[in-house]
Amino acid sequence: MNFNHFDDHGNAIMVDVSGKQETLRTATAAAEVHMSDKVLAAIQNSAIAKGDVLGVARLAGIMAAKRTPDLIPLSHPLSLHSVAVEFEQDSAAGKIEVQCTVRAFERTGVEMEAMTGAAVAALTIYDMCKGSDKSISIGDIRLLYKEGGKSGVYRREVGQ
Amino acid sequence: MNFNHFDDHGNAIMVDVSGKQETLRTATAAAEVHMSDKVLAAIQNSAIAKGDVLGVARLAGIMAAKRTPDLIPLSHPLSLHSVAVEFEQDSAAGKIEVQCTVRAFERTGVEMEAMTGAAVAALTIYDMCKGSDKSISIGDIRLLYKEGGKSGVYRREVGQ
Amino acid sequence: MNFNHFDDHGNAIMVDVSGKQETLRTATAAAEVHMSDKVLAAIQNSAIAKGDVLGVARLAGIMAAKRTPDLIPLSHPLSLHSVAVEFEQDSAAGKIEVQCTVRAFERTGVEMEAMTGAAVAALTIYDMCKGSDKSISIGDIRLLYKEGGKSGVYRREVGQ
Amino acid sequence: MNFNHFDDHGNAIMVDVSGKQETLRTATAAAEVHMSDKVLAAIQNSAIAKGDVLGVARLAGIMAAKRTPDLIPLSHPLSLHSVAVEFEQDSAAGKIEVQCTVRAFERTGVEMEAMTGAAVAALTIYDMCKGSDKSISIGDIRLLYKEGGKSGVYRREVGQ
Amino acid sequence: MNFNHFDDHGNAIMVDVSGKQETLRTATAAAEVHMSDKVLAAIQNSAIAKGDVLGVARLAGIMAAKRTPDLIPLSHPLSLHSVAVEFEQDSAAGKIEVQCTVRAFERTGVEMEAMTGAAVAALTIYDMCKGSDKSISIGDIRLLYKEGGKSGVYRREVGQ
Amino acid sequence: MNFNHFDDHGNAIMVDVSGKQETLRTATAAAEVHMSDKVLAAIQNSAIAKGDVLGVARLAGIMAAKRTPDLIPLSHPLSLHSVAVEFEQDSAAGKIEVQCTVRAFERTGVEMEAMTGAAVAALTIYDMCKGSDKSISIGDIRLLYKEGGKSGVYRREVGQ
Repeated sequence: MNFNHFDDHGNAIMVDVSGKQETLRTATAAAEVHMSDKVLAAIQNSAIAKGDVLGVARLAGIMAAKRTPDLIPLSHPLSLHSVAVEFEQDSAAGKIEVQCTVRAFERTGVEMEAMTGAAVAALTIYDMCKGSDKSISIGDIRLLYKEGGKSGVYRREVGQ
Repeated sequence: MNFNHFDDHGNAIMVDVSGKQETLRTATAAAEVHMSDKVLAAIQNSAIAKGDVLGVARLAGIMAAKRTPDLIPLSHPLSLHSVAVEFEQDSAAGKIEVQCTVRAFERTGVEMEAMTGAAVAALTIYDMCKGSDKSISIGDIRLLYKEGGKSGVYRREVGQ
Repeated sequence: MNFNHFDDHGNAIMVDVSGKQETLRTATAAAEVHMSDKVLAAIQNSAIAKGDVLGVARLAGIMAAKRTPDLIPLSHPLSLHSVAVEFEQDSAAGKIEVQCTVRAFERTGVEMEAMTGAAVAALTIYDMCKGSDKSISIGDIRLLYKEGGKSGVYRREVGQ
Repeated sequence: MNFNHFDDHGNAIMVDVSGKQETLRTATAAAEVHMSDKVLAAIQNSAIAKGDVLGVARLAGIMAAKRTPDLIPLSHPLSLHSVAVEFEQDSAAGKIEVQCTVRAFERTGVEMEAMTGAAVAALTIYDMCKGSDKSISIGDIRLLYKEGGKSGVYRREVGQ
Repeated sequence: MNFNHFDDHGNAIMVDVSGKQETLRTATAAAEVHMSDKVLAAIQNSAIAKGDVLGVARLAGIMAAKRTPDLIPLSHPLSLHSVAVEFEQDSAAGKIEVQCTVRAFERTGVEMEAMTGAAVAALTIYDMCKGSDKSISIGDIRLLYKEGGKSGVYRREVGQ
Repeated sequence: MNFNHFDDHGNAIMVDVSGKQETLRTATAAAEVHMSDKVLAAIQNSAIAKGDVLGVARLAGIMAAKRTPDLIPLSHPLSLHSVAVEFEQDSAAGKIEVQCTVRAFERTGVEMEAMTGAAVAALTIYDMCKGSDKSISIGDIRLLYKEGGKSGVYRREVGQ
C-alpha cells in the first residue's frame, strides 16, 4: 500500500494535479456532538430565544472550510463554489448531527474541506457549551458522500 | 442553563476576561482515528520507511493549535507557551489515539487549543490515508484534562 | 506635525511600545449602514424569521477585530480580552448603527481593533443585502470612546 | 424580499456558484476619510518628505482585498487578477477619497473585494493619523461601478 | 527601466493579468543553509534517529508556498497544483541545498511561490538548529528554472 | 548534540516556555539582495520618483514578522512590541543590505521574527525587480544581534 502524499523517497509532497481536468466535485462529511439532555435542550431553546449556538457553529464551519489549505499541510488551495452546514438534533440519542457539503469545479476533490467544515462546526458547539458541560464529545467525523473526478461516486453505507 | 458566550440579549460575544489573573493553564484533548488493519499497518511502516504520516499530522496539529482564534469565532487570542501532539497506535482496536497538550500562562483556559490541535492532527491522518480508504472515521474528540483557573482540575473519567 | 508611525527618516515602523506598562484599555467605534426602508425592514424580519443578517455580521465583526494585526500594517499584535458588537436599527433615519467595543490589558490602545470590527460588521451587512440593493452605503466609521494609557479618556462629542 | 445568503430554512450558506460561467468581473468601490486641514496637509507633505501615509494605506488596501474571504463570512474565495487603490485629496472638502478597483475572471462578482480594499485603506489612514487627530471619520463606503455577470453594468448615480 | 508593479504615477498595483491565458507554469527556486560540520552531522542523524529536522522544514516550505499571497504584497492569489521541497546535504561544503518546485495552471508565473517555499524551509532549518549554533546563515536564494507563459523558459546558468 | 525542538522520542514539539520570566528581547537579522547595477540604480531612483520599491518591501517585512508563528511551525506566538526594517544600498558591491530589528517583552527570543522579516523584505524586492532581472539572488540571511533572556548578548563577528 502506498500513500500518494509521499514521493518515491518517502518525502511529503503536494500531489501534482496540474494535468487533471476541472470537473464538478461534491463532498459531504458529518460529525456528531454528544451531550447531556440538559445541554441539548438548552441549544434547542437557544435558537428561538437567547443565543443561537448553531448559528455561530454554522458560520464557523463555513469559514473553516475556506481555511482548509492553511490547516491541512498537503491539501491544495481550491476555489470553493458552495459551502453549506446543516444540523439535526436527535434528542433520543443525545446528540446533534452536523453535515457539511462543499462543491467546487476543480481539479481535485473537496473531501477535506467538507471534513474540516464539519469538524470545526462541531468544535464550535463544544466551545459554546463547555462552560456547562466539559464532558461533551465529538464523534464519528466521516465522509458521507463524494462525487466527481475519476474515482466516481462514493457513498458511505449506513452503519459503516 | 445559560451559555456564557452570549450576553443578556442573546448576542454572541467574546467574553470579557480582562479582570482575570494570569495563571498557568494546561489542557489535554484526545481524538481517535479508526481505520482498517491494512492502513494502520501502512502507517506504522511509514514512520520507519517511506513517508512519515504521523510526523506530518503532528506538525499540522501543533500549527492548528496556534490558529485556534482564527477558527473558533468567540475564542480569545492566546500566547501559547507549549504545544505537543502524541500518537498511540492500538492495532487490536484498529485505531490511532491522538493526544494534544497545550500550556499557557494566560487569563483563560486552553481547552479549545488542545481540542483543535487534536482534531486537525486527526483530520490530517485522514487526508493522507483517504486515497487508500475513504471509510476511515474520526471519533471521540474529547477533553481529557484541564488545570488552572478558578474551576480547578478537570479529569475525564475512564469510560466516560 | 509628525506621524508617529514613521521614524526620523520617514520610514514606516511599528512603534516601540516595549517600555510601556500594561493597563486596561477600552475602545468603542461605530459605523452606520444606510439602506432603503425595504431592506431595513427585511433585516429586522430576518432576525425573527429566516436568516439572521445581524447575527452573521456580529460574528464577522468579532472575528475581524482579532485579525486587525493582519490587516493594518503597522498595528501591534494584541491579546484581546473582550470584543462585543451591537446593532441599533433606526428606521426613521434608514440606517443601522454598528458599535464595536474592545477591551484588553495591553501596552497600547485598541482603537484599531474596534474600528476594524465595526467596519467589517458593516461590510458584512452590505454583503448580505447587496443582492437586493447595491446602493447601500457605509458611513461615519468613527471612534466613540477610548480609555486607558497615558492619553486618558477620549469621548467623541455628539454631532462631531 | 429574500436574502440570497440564506437557504429556505433561513440558514446562512455560501451560495452555490458552481453552475455559473467564468466572465470578466470588475468592481470599483470608494470610501472617504474626513480630517482636519492640518492633518490633510501633513499627509500631502508626507508623500514628498518624511513618511508616505498613502503609500502604506495603498498596500494595506491591496492586501486586504486578497483577504476578503477570511473576513466576509459567506464570500467565495476568488482568484483576483488585478487590484488597484487610488487616492484623491480634496482640500476644500477636508477629505481624501479612496478608490479601489478589482478585476477577476470569475464565477461571481468582486464587489466585496473592492469594498474591503477601500475600507481597509481608509482604516489604515486613520491608524496613521489617529495620534494627531482621533476625530477623523471614514464615510461613504459605497460601490461605484460593477461590470460582468448576468446582472450587467451597475453605475452609482452621482449624488446617490 | 520600469518596474511593472507600479502604474504610470508610480503607485504600487497588483498587475492586471485578467487578459492572459492560463498555461502550465513551473518554477524551481533554491536556497542554501550554511552551518558547522557538527550541526550538519546532527541533522543527518536526525532523519534516521530522533527528530527529523528536514521533515519539519519540508512541510514548512510547502505550507509557506501556499501563503505567498499573504506575504508578498503585490503577488496574485494562485491555485497551486503541485509543491515539492527537496534537500541535498553537501558535507564537504558544509551546507544543505534546499530546492522548491511549484507548478500551476495559471495566468501568471509561480516564481514567488517557489522562492518563498525555499526561503521558509531554510528559515525553519535555522529555527531548529539555532539553539546549537546561532551563526548559521542562509544564502543564495535564487530562481533556478521557470517555464510557461510568454517569456518562455528561464534556466539559471551554473555559477551565476 | 540535541535539538531542543524535539522531545526525548524525537517528536517535534513547541518547547515549553511557560516557566520562563518575561524579559525584554531584541534581535536584529540581515539579508542581502544582489542585483545588477541597472536594477540597483532603478531602485534608488524609484524612491524619489515613480514607484517606491523599498517602501513596499519594508511593509512586507514588518507584516511578515507578525506572521512568523503561521510560517515557522514550532515557533511561539509572540506579542511583538517593535518592528523596524532598514535598507542600505551598496552600489560598489551591487547589493542592498536589509536589516530587521524586532523587540518584545516576552518569554522567548525574537530571532525568528527578525529573520523572517528580513527574508520577506528581501523576497519582496526580488518580486518587484524580477520582471527586469530574474538572476537577482538573496544572500547571507543571518542573525546580527540578540539580547535578552538567559543566554545573554550575541553579536555576530564581522566577516563571520
